[in-house]
Amino acid sequence: MTSFGPQEEWRSAGSSALAPPVARLIEQLHKLPGIGPKTAQRLAYYLIRMPDREARELADAIGSVKESLGFCPRCQNIAAPGLCGVCSDSARDQTRLCVVQEPLDVVSLERASAFNGLYHVLHGLIDPMSNVGPDDLRIRELLRRIGDEPVQEVIIAVNPTVEGEATAMYLRQLLRPLGPRVTRLARGLPVGGDLEYADDLTLARALEGRQDF
Amino acid sequence: MTSFGPQEEWRSAGSSALAPPVARLIEQLHKLPGIGPKTAQRLAYYLIRMPDREARELADAIGSVKESLGFCPRCQNIAAPGLCGVCSDSARDQTRLCVVQEPLDVVSLERASAFNGLYHVLHGLIDPMSNVGPDDLRIRELLRRIGDEPVQEVIIAVNPTVEGEATAMYLRQLLRPLGPRVTRLARGLPVGGDLEYADDLTLARALEGRQDF
Repeated sequence: MTSFGPQEEWRSAGSSALAPPVARLIEQLHKLPGIGPKTAQRLAYYLIRMPDREARELADAIGSVKESLGFCPRCQNIAAPGLCGVCSDSARDQTRLCVVQEPLDVVSLERASAFNGLYHVLHGLIDPMSNVGPDDLRIRELLRRIGDEPVQEVIIAVNPTVEGEATAMYLRQLLRPLGPRVTRLARGLPVGGDLEYADDLTLARALEGRQDF
Repeated sequence: MTSFGPQEEWRSAGSSALAPPVARLIEQLHKLPGIGPKTAQRLAYYLIRMPDREARELADAIGSVKESLGFCPRCQNIAAPGLCGVCSDSARDQTRLCVVQEPLDVVSLERASAFNGLYHVLHGLIDPMSNVGPDDLRIRELLRRIGDEPVQEVIIAVNPTVEGEATAMYLRQLLRPLGPRVTRLARGLPVGGDLEYADDLTLARALEGRQDF
């Protein structure tokens, strides 16, 4: 996320061609993830040409989004103050808890419409290389819920990566003695995927997890 | 730039998972060019996690950029009030004028450090299909400069597209009777390009424009 290179580039080459407010905006946009120097430029000029009202709406949305948000006291998802929409929906299955890494995972799972239980957002994965330990995640809150709520199954739905595996193992060890069934998402071939292009590990997992048919 | 589809998608599927301020921010970000629904989501959560100060800086940069900008009265580039950096630089060659479509083109040419004259920004190309005629561009301002300034050469540096060609032809007809030499950027194989993959028109232009060696 360092932006020295391209900034220098603007400063040295385009300096006389770029008005300072434009250069400042490009710099700011370039700090965002996935926004390279060219995209930042294109976005900046788009914003400059935008109708006043729309530009102000976007600025307000960015400036105010943090103020109006907090964490749902139950599932820890980012939400407006109070219980989030999922947690306050009594029609959902209160006995199943899906543990995910971050808020976007909740959005993905909700879009798939395949789960009707509740969520718990960890806000990260155990990752010793980046100095993220269990205490940096919302694991304490998860354990408290297992005690307070009628949870019968905890589905660990973290990414199938090294950090995800480590976190899943750690959670399993913590959760099993507390009673609920602990499961995790199936690993195997992605739907629409091609056996020929599947990596060895995915193939091995797909074989391991083969199902009666 | 319509955003109905994806918005509906969030509304129907992720509605309970997304706090309204987050949904609003995703909607706003998704309106930007090149920002799809997934990127908008990723950006939104990144902005939410950003330190307060940085998020406010970005919001300010977007909200205020238009207020502090106008058009350089000479070259029509977007700039802070008064003459832009290029136009006010007396060390630049005042006899050569490079005509471009938009401000970003000036940035690109300045970065290449291959031109030391002045610019003129048209803010568009003649495009009858989109109802853009000569009067919608800064052509009147260009003609006034040819009269007022010691211009000896006008380099037409528009994109080699249908609209670019049409605009170039139109400008040539207007400019020739006024005296200055009218040139345009060479067309040919891009540096580092591969003859095998060049399209027919590019090859034809490269042959037409072949140079003694």
